[in-house]
Amino acid sequence: MTRHELFQLIQQKQSFLCVGLDTDIELIPPHLLDYEDPIYEFNKAIIDATIDLAVAYKPNLAFYESKGVAGWKSLEKTMKYLQQWEGKVFTIADAKRGDIGNTSKMYAKTFFDHLGFDSVTVAPYMGEDSVSPFLDYYGKWVIVLGLTSNKGSTDFQFLESEGKMLHEHVILKTQQWANPDQLMFVIGATHPEAFHRIRKLAPDNFYLVPGVGAQGGDLDAVAENGCNDHCGLLINSTRQIIYASKGKDFAEAARQAALQNQTAMKKYI
Amino acid sequence: MTRHELFQLIQQKQSFLCVGLDTDIELIPPHLLDYEDPIYEFNKAIIDATIDLAVAYKPNLAFYESKGVAGWKSLEKTMKYLQQWEGKVFTIADAKRGDIGNTSKMYAKTFFDHLGFDSVTVAPYMGEDSVSPFLDYYGKWVIVLGLTSNKGSTDFQFLESEGKMLHEHVILKTQQWANPDQLMFVIGATHPEAFHRIRKLAPDNFYLVPGVGAQGGDLDAVAENGCNDHCGLLINSTRQIIYASKGKDFAEAARQAALQNQTAMKKYI
Repeated sequence: MTRHELFQLIQQKQSFLCVGLDTDIELIPPHLLDYEDPIYEFNKAIIDATIDLAVAYKPNLAFYESKGVAGWKSLEKTMKYLQQWEGKVFTIADAKRGDIGNTSKMYAKTFFDHLGFDSVTVAPYMGEDSVSPFLDYYGKWVIVLGLTSNKGSTDFQFLESEGKMLHEHVILKTQQWANPDQLMFVIGATHPEAFHRIRKLAPDNFYLVPGVGAQGGDLDAVAENGCNDHCGLLINSTRQIIYASKGKDFAEAARQAALQNQTAMKKYI
Repeated sequence: MTRHELFQLIQQKQSFLCVGLDTDIELIPPHLLDYEDPIYEFNKAIIDATIDLAVAYKPNLAFYESKGVAGWKSLEKTMKYLQQWEGKVFTIADAKRGDIGNTSKMYAKTFFDHLGFDSVTVAPYMGEDSVSPFLDYYGKWVIVLGLTSNKGSTDFQFLESEGKMLHEHVILKTQQWANPDQLMFVIGATHPEAFHRIRKLAPDNFYLVPGVGAQGGDLDAVAENGCNDHCGLLINSTRQIIYASKGKDFAEAARQAALQNQTAMKKYI
């Protein structure tokens, strides 16, 4: 999907909501456990209930891998299910990979060729050859960790060198490797004060923004400081949406939570 | 496995060799393609041929994931096969994971509980809560990326802040979270000049050292500068060993290559 197509999608849906699919067998409604593949049934219901309100879905790889072969199958089926909306939804493999060239190439093959994702999150620590193999796929995206939403983001990401903080170095340097049609950044909603500053360093890139909801980030604070002229944001919400109810009404409750987000987003588009 | 047990194993085998299992269906001997699971057959033969010469095996997750469910099965079977040498071999999931706390917890479950690895490689960019969930497993290890072997290691890892380079900050800070009984560092053999300096910062930790062989690192240069009083090194070799021959003699050729490494290592133990 091109950047222009992504912006069109955002305009059509009047939303820049990304729904995180961190599907945990221990947190889904108990009645789903009767199905052969509860994880997949849950994802399908969440997707059906939110597809007109969300522009993106973000399965978190850890939750699938922890179930081994069964989890991998649930993920493959979820991605296949999403294919019916190809071009109408943006998919993110939240995998935070990054390795030497020949290995990153294998990860690119996994997420783009095999699973059919539009994008993958990548950790920048290992530098250019860990990121560039993902750029060989036209229309596919790399989402590099810039300033993350978690407490540990303060351990290294704010270290200052040559007048810039580490996450600023990452944001500037990676733009030498990829243009904004293939490169997004993860910028956590828990640092709302940073968006204005970071926008100056990466004016045209989309930012994937985790941390709204359960982690305490505020949608309005992010949108006010983070939007650019083609929106430029994908704000993720996970637990607030997918676990809005643990009863049989979980999909309807997810829809209501997504609607609340979408309503709040409209005015920024 | 405790640090003491690992050192005992090194003394018994007179080796600190780690064999990388980056098993690529396109690079294994063609006659194996007749088997139901060629990847597993290859791994089994390599393990059988080198088990008395190698203290560690390091499957590279990317190579298994790129084959989807089939690849995951090959990995599970390989790990199960290695179980017969439990306590006699150290296993490393080369996965370079790292995410927010609840997600790192899932990865720990995957690699330690589900697959039964002794250790997993972790990227440090996201800080403490991305590393600490792996430490909740007694006798299991986190191997944090310090100074990696690839070209891109120069992009961020040498940035200087407060008189220290980023990889030095990582090596010092992570030692506040874990002791040398659970914490190793990845230090690339392509930076032999760095070992002497890094030993002063992390005197007691084991280092996992990639980059010998195909990537150009030199075993002697690493061992001379990197060993401590309980060895303190696991030197990885992958392509030089597992692809020593592409014929039917691949396992015997792998053994010869491993033997060459082990012979060179003896004098440092």
